[in-house]
Amino acid sequence: MQSGNAPTMKDVAREAGVSLGTVSKVINDIPVGEPYRKKVEAAAKKLGYQVNNYARGLKTNKTYCIALVMPSLRHPFFAMLTDELTSCLMRYGYRSLLMITNYDSTAEKHCFMLAQQNKIDGIIALSYSPDLEVDDSVPVVTIDRHFSAGIPCVSSDNYRGGELAAQKLMELGCKNLLLFRIGPDIYGEVEKRGPGFESACRMAKVPYQSLFLSDDDTEAPFFQFLEEHIQDGKLEFDGIFCNSDGLAVRVCEFLRKQGIRIPEDVQIIGYDGIIDFATRRYICSTIVQPVAEMAETAVRFLLNGDNAPANISLPVRFASGGTTRE
Amino acid sequence: MQSGNAPTMKDVAREAGVSLGTVSKVINDIPVGEPYRKKVEAAAKKLGYQVNNYARGLKTNKTYCIALVMPSLRHPFFAMLTDELTSCLMRYGYRSLLMITNYDSTAEKHCFMLAQQNKIDGIIALSYSPDLEVDDSVPVVTIDRHFSAGIPCVSSDNYRGGELAAQKLMELGCKNLLLFRIGPDIYGEVEKRGPGFESACRMAKVPYQSLFLSDDDTEAPFFQFLEEHIQDGKLEFDGIFCNSDGLAVRVCEFLRKQGIRIPEDVQIIGYDGIIDFATRRYICSTIVQPVAEMAETAVRFLLNGDNAPANISLPVRFASGGTTRE
Repeated sequence: MQSGNAPTMKDVAREAGVSLGTVSKVINDIPVGEPYRKKVEAAAKKLGYQVNNYARGLKTNKTYCIALVMPSLRHPFFAMLTDELTSCLMRYGYRSLLMITNYDSTAEKHCFMLAQQNKIDGIIALSYSPDLEVDDSVPVVTIDRHFSAGIPCVSSDNYRGGELAAQKLMELGCKNLLLFRIGPDIYGEVEKRGPGFESACRMAKVPYQSLFLSDDDTEAPFFQFLEEHIQDGKLEFDGIFCNSDGLAVRVCEFLRKQGIRIPEDVQIIGYDGIIDFATRRYICSTIVQPVAEMAETAVRFLLNGDNAPANISLPVRFASGGTTRE
Repeated sequence: MQSGNAPTMKDVAREAGVSLGTVSKVINDIPVGEPYRKKVEAAAKKLGYQVNNYARGLKTNKTYCIALVMPSLRHPFFAMLTDELTSCLMRYGYRSLLMITNYDSTAEKHCFMLAQQNKIDGIIALSYSPDLEVDDSVPVVTIDRHFSAGIPCVSSDNYRGGELAAQKLMELGCKNLLLFRIGPDIYGEVEKRGPGFESACRMAKVPYQSLFLSDDDTEAPFFQFLEEHIQDGKLEFDGIFCNSDGLAVRVCEFLRKQGIRIPEDVQIIGYDGIIDFATRRYICSTIVQPVAEMAETAVRFLLNGDNAPANISLPVRFASGGTTRE
């Protein structure tokens, strides 16, 4: 496969004064004595020998490629996650095969099929398919979604995040709370944000109301609900938890248009920890997902698959972004 | 390479009632009679035969993989571009090998080396290295940066974008213009935004001032300049063009803190066409880069490399985002 005058493994063996087998071992990561490895590496460097990773893929049955199946890069959370996953894989000597599904489950299945055809070493997926079947032959780690018990799922601690949002709002003086949640109908880690929030409210005996919408709905019912609960320019609730930063920003914008002051009259917390690229500030007060740690954990569990627990939830933290009093 | 009971090319040949050679030709895109191709495809589909693209890569010397070398996905323009490039490559039956350089030129060179080792079919790069050497053996298309005359560079029409910003500001009544530009010192398409703006001002005989900073500088001199040109709560300029939306947003924020109203007192136009993910609106009035067309063009020129002009500039348009009167 080396073209033209490109050096071959034979050239490297000759230059290093070792056998072809030794060169092959070094290239394929099979243990050889350290002096031999050094000789081969020096010779390869001197000759400008480039390992043909495709041939290498066939030989060792490793491709050093991991498929990343992502819904989109237009949402900053997915872009941030893909950035961290790719950077992390590169540090481990692996490459990212990026696949974009546009939230379409047919496209997702197609991506999984393509990934398997490419004989990649593994898949890291953030999937929106409720019924995705995963081939046993390829290791898979999911982010935020459970496929089956055997497949590790890495997420932020969504339940704790919900609790933390409620506790923070109460700590900042809120007496009547509201939960807005929109998301896919399939069961996923992300759904735990609501129950976490509600549990913390019940524990503290603080009244709350919840409004749940499916991903297929428009958000209009949220704004209608808010409108119905504004009397004499005052909202009945003084603290709102939205299950994403995007929703929190839209809720803030709506309330401000109704003349309600944030955070003076109502305090709002979102979820994700999105940072505005222009101002480099959180776009709202938020429960921050530890994106870098999630990427690192997903990569580590994929590469050293053994003994992976089915579920890895990583700690979250609160960050103020101007929509709470602190 | 087929594992377990997976069907092999032999199984497909038997099922289709054709020779192994015919199956191989179909798989490797070598012309065969249409009836044979159909028979093989039907048999492959029936048996669930999956092409081993690594073996295919070795056979036809094609990997159906294109490396995307990107500085980061934390900037929404790069994320949007990577999203469009990957989606477009998938439509053409190709996959994206994503590499993140974090604006580091050493990392960029490393990415190019890795890409070549992987024997990919091509590279699409948005590079920040002034002295990147590109191996002739792999087709390369760049976005926004020139490497050498032989390599096509796809960009938005930056010069026209600068002109358009000046013309729009003048059309909206501005009489005294200001240009803020920050960017890398290396020569690239992006640098033409400034000259385009200045040329349109000169043509219309409208006075303007320009302030240029290097990518390595902080933006503090811009804000100092603005402060020095505010007298009695009034800025000396009534129209500002910033060479990115991020800078435009920061300039707006600074001026508003000084009590200056936007767009009533000063109108501001940025460049890129960034849409806020939460509100789905442009983050400022802006010159919109045609990202989808840029991705499509880069992919097309990479895949059908012949007769590619060295430079492909795609039309831009103005979009209002609340920082101009219209």
